[in-house]
Amino acid sequence: MQDFTFQCPTKIIFGRNTENQVGKEVKKYGSRILLHYGGGSIKRTGLYDRIIKSLKAEGIEVMELSGVKPNPRLSMVHEGIKICRENKINFILAVGGGSAIDSAKAIALGVPYDGDVWDFYVGKAKPRKVLPLGVVLTLPATGSEASASSVITNEDGWYKKGLGSDLNRPKFSIMNPELTFTLPAFQTFSGISDIMAHVQERYFTNTKHVELTDRLSEATLKTVINNAKILLNDPKNYDARAEIMWAGTIAHNGLLGTGREEDWASHRIEHELSGIYDVTHGAGLAVVFPAWMKYVYKHDVERFAKYAVRVWDVEPDFDNIENTVLEGIRRYQSFLKSVGLPTTLKELNVPYDRFDEMAEKCTQFGPVGGFIKVHKEDVINILNIAR
Amino acid sequence: MQDFTFQCPTKIIFGRNTENQVGKEVKKYGSRILLHYGGGSIKRTGLYDRIIKSLKAEGIEVMELSGVKPNPRLSMVHEGIKICRENKINFILAVGGGSAIDSAKAIALGVPYDGDVWDFYVGKAKPRKVLPLGVVLTLPATGSEASASSVITNEDGWYKKGLGSDLNRPKFSIMNPELTFTLPAFQTFSGISDIMAHVQERYFTNTKHVELTDRLSEATLKTVINNAKILLNDPKNYDARAEIMWAGTIAHNGLLGTGREEDWASHRIEHELSGIYDVTHGAGLAVVFPAWMKYVYKHDVERFAKYAVRVWDVEPDFDNIENTVLEGIRRYQSFLKSVGLPTTLKELNVPYDRFDEMAEKCTQFGPVGGFIKVHKEDVINILNIAR
Repeated sequence: MQDFTFQCPTKIIFGRNTENQVGKEVKKYGSRILLHYGGGSIKRTGLYDRIIKSLKAEGIEVMELSGVKPNPRLSMVHEGIKICRENKINFILAVGGGSAIDSAKAIALGVPYDGDVWDFYVGKAKPRKVLPLGVVLTLPATGSEASASSVITNEDGWYKKGLGSDLNRPKFSIMNPELTFTLPAFQTFSGISDIMAHVQERYFTNTKHVELTDRLSEATLKTVINNAKILLNDPKNYDARAEIMWAGTIAHNGLLGTGREEDWASHRIEHELSGIYDVTHGAGLAVVFPAWMKYVYKHDVERFAKYAVRVWDVEPDFDNIENTVLEGIRRYQSFLKSVGLPTTLKELNVPYDRFDEMAEKCTQFGPVGGFIKVHKEDVINILNIAR
Repeated sequence: MQDFTFQCPTKIIFGRNTENQVGKEVKKYGSRILLHYGGGSIKRTGLYDRIIKSLKAEGIEVMELSGVKPNPRLSMVHEGIKICRENKINFILAVGGGSAIDSAKAIALGVPYDGDVWDFYVGKAKPRKVLPLGVVLTLPATGSEASASSVITNEDGWYKKGLGSDLNRPKFSIMNPELTFTLPAFQTFSGISDIMAHVQERYFTNTKHVELTDRLSEATLKTVINNAKILLNDPKNYDARAEIMWAGTIAHNGLLGTGREEDWASHRIEHELSGIYDVTHGAGLAVVFPAWMKYVYKHDVERFAKYAVRVWDVEPDFDNIENTVLEGIRRYQSFLKSVGLPTTLKELNVPYDRFDEMAEKCTQFGPVGGFIKVHKEDVINILNIAR
């Protein structure tokens, strides 16, 4: 096990009707807030009204910035920073999924910073200050509701970059599984694919003796898989929604990565797909992750066999351990297909003519991945496996 | 799944030589501190000197209160409160295991409180303020290094009472597995018994649909069991020590209890043993917990069968599910014996003549336990099973 530091102070308020507590929670940190969200769905469902009512009851002044898109854009972050400065905003409330939250995180970091907030995402500067931030989560997927990371897309060149900093952790996250009942199936299962990827990015490691985090990761994956199957036929099953939602937080709050080297090559490769083709992140991962697995598994056949046996209930083939591995990957892909996700670039509507450009951008600051180092040529090979 | 709120802001600093960071961490909160610890072992090992050096390097003034005993006493808590008030102490640093930490937690609550700190433990008052507290952990067991609870023994009547409050959570905990290399085997394995009990107190629940926390709990138990076996023959195995140490925190930081009713009858019964006979808490639990299981398993045979199969690898007997349950409990007891722990009151040197008194004290505020309600007669029955 490696040495580590871990701290996840985000307060989780989980359960039915918890959005009605938002005013009380916000009040602890701020009185003039920016409410940041995506499209009209929170208005259609009545969530917007309930949140405004709760905020008004505490006398909180609300400015709004809506219209956050999936793969949230730097231009809107700049807009948010401007609004916050002009209006002396002292708290940001994100309502939505990872896009709204990540956009809000970038705004929160940008407000007290003199330069361009993009500096943080390309490693030109390190964040030192941040506005406090809260979340009402409506889409379990990115884990951003308690994570240290945010991912932003710069339209100038379509670069999608992630930033990890403990300053990114929200003060609180309100998580009501009922708010996810009306998600379209594609969003639900793309979210689930993302959650699984967050666990797997940590699971495939070169660090030896990480039994606790291995087993906690397997537990999280099995839970997600089992409850995804329930949601296929019963999308308003509260308990299954709750299991997925809480698992989504655990998958990415950092706990499962404690004491171990992580990978993240699949995320980095997927970011190039999302950056150029604006594909849904979890759907992109459903295509990239199995391809990455097929490309790298020989690096540690035993770890991949453990994954196959413990997560996918593959009976180990002791005469040919690779068969065990391949059956595990096959079941992973089969699961992704069963919930309606694409598992090839073709199904994702991604053409094959810009692999070189994506591979170049992906590795522009050096090879990616902790498990094995993935260079430009490897990215191209993985994308070819994913055709 | 039940609704819940969860927040564990304690910063975990985990790994080799991390005790040398203590001065830097303390400095963030205080400049005049109370160093609170047990006996001479931290002086023999050199840990005391390294801590003092790190504190002095940051210019921190140190008062000391040593001599904390297992099952920490209210009288010493009172002494600590007095010292803190007289010396305007603004931070408490506990070095040791659960006894030093729990004693420090009680002092931290008592300093800003006008009444007797014992009020909090008997429910006469609710804590509102606390001095900040940090930990250097030397014994993985109680999970107190990140938990919301502390347990104190009042010598006036030998009452041992626990208090749960988020104010109890330390600001940071420094956890170096190397510091546990020299623990006597009995302390190591009593600690492990306590860790397992913390998971099990949450595992045996009436709440339905708690798959994630079930699986995370099973993962934690399996890890603890496997690594305990390694330590039997190789007590200086860093990785096994590290797995146990981190598992001990996860077992009791509250994560495994999110969204579920918990039990805690075994702990409450054990507190009566420790209170009167001053037995080692984890050893007491090794006696009480299996007896409690035998007494209550019929309340939910399926849950106990799941425990047997998933934690103890029992092959399910579908013709007689109770056989599966009983084999699980048998393997639990067999494991406890294999690491040298007592599994009967006799082996614990507890006589049989004060069952009535213990049962009376245990249930004085009503029946205990969430899984089934344990009344006075039940406590006596469980103690009889434990003979």
